[in-house]
Amino acid sequence: ADVKKIAVIAGDGIGPEVVAEAEKVLKKTEEVFGYRFETEHGLFGGIAIDEKGTPLPEDTLEMCRRSDAVLLGAVGGPKWDNNPKELRPETGLLGIRKALGLFSNIRPAVIFDCLKDASTLKPEVLEGTDLIVVRELTGGIYFGEKLRREGENGEEAVDTCVYNVKEVERIVRQAFEIARTRRKKLASVDKANVLETSRLWRETVNRIAPDYPDVELEHVLVDNCAMQLLRRPSSFDVIVTENMFGDILSDEAAMLTGSIGMLSSASLGEGSFGLYEPVHGSAPDIAGQGIANPIATILSVALMFRLTFGYHDAAAAIERAVKEVLDAGHRTGDIAVDKSSAIGTQQMGDLIVAAI
Amino acid sequence: ADVKKIAVIAGDGIGPEVVAEAEKVLKKTEEVFGYRFETEHGLFGGIAIDEKGTPLPEDTLEMCRRSDAVLLGAVGGPKWDNNPKELRPETGLLGIRKALGLFSNIRPAVIFDCLKDASTLKPEVLEGTDLIVVRELTGGIYFGEKLRREGENGEEAVDTCVYNVKEVERIVRQAFEIARTRRKKLASVDKANVLETSRLWRETVNRIAPDYPDVELEHVLVDNCAMQLLRRPSSFDVIVTENMFGDILSDEAAMLTGSIGMLSSASLGEGSFGLYEPVHGSAPDIAGQGIANPIATILSVALMFRLTFGYHDAAAAIERAVKEVLDAGHRTGDIAVDKSSAIGTQQMGDLIVAAI
Ligand SMILES: CC(C)[C@H](C(=O)O)[C@@H](O)C(=O)O
Ligand SMILES: CC(C)[C@H](C(=O)O)[C@@H](O)C(=O)O
Repeated sequence: ADVKKIAVIAGDGIGPEVVAEAEKVLKKTEEVFGYRFETEHGLFGGIAIDEKGTPLPEDTLEMCRRSDAVLLGAVGGPKWDNNPKELRPETGLLGIRKALGLFSNIRPAVIFDCLKDASTLKPEVLEGTDLIVVRELTGGIYFGEKLRREGENGEEAVDTCVYNVKEVERIVRQAFEIARTRRKKLASVDKANVLETSRLWRETVNRIAPDYPDVELEHVLVDNCAMQLLRRPSSFDVIVTENMFGDILSDEAAMLTGSIGMLSSASLGEGSFGLYEPVHGSAPDIAGQGIANPIATILSVALMFRLTFGYHDAAAAIERAVKEVLDAGHRTGDIAVDKSSAIGTQQMGDLIVAAI
Repeated sequence: ADVKKIAVIAGDGIGPEVVAEAEKVLKKTEEVFGYRFETEHGLFGGIAIDEKGTPLPEDTLEMCRRSDAVLLGAVGGPKWDNNPKELRPETGLLGIRKALGLFSNIRPAVIFDCLKDASTLKPEVLEGTDLIVVRELTGGIYFGEKLRREGENGEEAVDTCVYNVKEVERIVRQAFEIARTRRKKLASVDKANVLETSRLWRETVNRIAPDYPDVELEHVLVDNCAMQLLRRPSSFDVIVTENMFGDILSDEAAMLTGSIGMLSSASLGEGSFGLYEPVHGSAPDIAGQGIANPIATILSVALMFRLTFGYHDAAAAIERAVKEVLDAGHRTGDIAVDKSSAIGTQQMGDLIVAAI
């Protein structure tokens, strides 16, 4: 098989611990399926600030550019929270998205049967929930002009939210395509009763919709969506929305599942290149203790196999292995009901590797 | 007692039905407590578009200005949804907030013991939930410049989010004051890791905080808040945030309670003037059937008594009456477990009036 290049960015906090387990999984799939991966490691986030004086060093970016996919752990931590903007981990995150053209963030929110009780929602409400939030990732208020100025009423701050038709069209088309491979339902979320960017968004969705007559489309206002996710989560299939709304709603959707330590995500650009990472953060409070849950990162590898490499057999094997290990009752601390029987990061990784 | 002037705006959909019950409650408190109210009625929203060609007629605005408080039912409906912007009910809503200087929207989210099971959240998670969302209402991306233009990549739309220090300071001080009267905890919600307006917001909060040493302050990022509301709703006391985030989070918080037909809200300006309305919308699907739940509107009267008039005795009497009627097992359709035993809007109103 041809060799796939994977850029590995462990990052901060529990990042290195969970990424190490995902790398074991990569190795095991080489043995079992005959695929070949070449990994390269780079600094990013807080550790890059400490060692290189910038959250996104040029050589890390170069490494990503010559790779087929990126596997990211997590970045950030209190240590860098009060740094000036250019020296903050999240500035690196926004920078890498923009530099690599990753305009689409894909976050599946699924319920693991054996973890149903971990949610704060009633199990009967969650039953059958299996949705994907498709978030626009390189536009909107995140990347528009920002400034401070003296106004009539003292100092004021300004953020600008901009979207052009092409930006909306490419993410919405991608969401329609994803819906086609699933239950064929798309909810487009906006605030068209207030925002001009939302009106452009909705017009664009409506103009494109006839190209996907097999997909059932609904427009949902963002405030209503925040409610409906709580009321009828299982009725959603694919949700597509702009950057800021997607940030909020994808986190709400993730929390619904009750197992944020289990959720993977993909950030995609044009073509098959993608960056894969767990939904959870760097969890500095438990870093270095060997107790973090590596499953979200391991499932991010499965997502990479599906979306970037088309290695569906290996992806399915990883997903099956995770399910098997969970069904056998093994749990890391974050998802254990009985904390005293919780296993560690490496043990969980080893069990999954053995089950592949 | 001196006569209090109340502007009554029934609006669209179920608005007139629920407002009629609230007016009965006003009358009853006159009899029981000796207070005196003078009500005046005005057109607003969809009905004003139909009858006057504008959602916010000048004489309705004048009526509000010469009143001590406004009681609003609900506005909007599919009939006007595709109208041009100036002829849409929500344009009236934004207009009345701005014209009356109602910069603060206050939304209590409380759990009614006898309705705990109506929520999609587990009862043990909800236990003790009693929070207030204080939302800035006349600034931010709602009221900043909006435009369309030709860009390099075709048509583009722009929304501008602006906040000045004074706008932030007045809403944050109000939230601190409210927290003082309660459990003395304030969560300030922003997206300071991305937005300049959020950084101004956070700086302002931190500058003011020393004036309220008795209030425990935490800063929460908006995406994290959307999660924490689901995970630990009872840990919040007062949440203060900007207009757009408040729109989303207050709806999420309302849905948590499981009884959106029970929640009241206040929009306040400088001084004691305020506009009071139920959190729910105009529910066009059930309008005119006499089955809407009038409790949220009746509780909005209680909120008016507390916040604008300082009639705490009458407010308490209304709240007690509502609880009594619910504890006796009476339910409108939206909150009835056994729908066949549900009572109508007028019956519910009459029972509450009788219990005052
Ligand atoms: C860290 C922050 C800048 C980032 C975002 O808002 O996009 C994060 O919340 C995310 O969702 O990946
Ligand atoms: C109708 C709409 C303009 C309004 C808002 O977004 O403020 C509504 O959602 C609300 O919360 O009162």
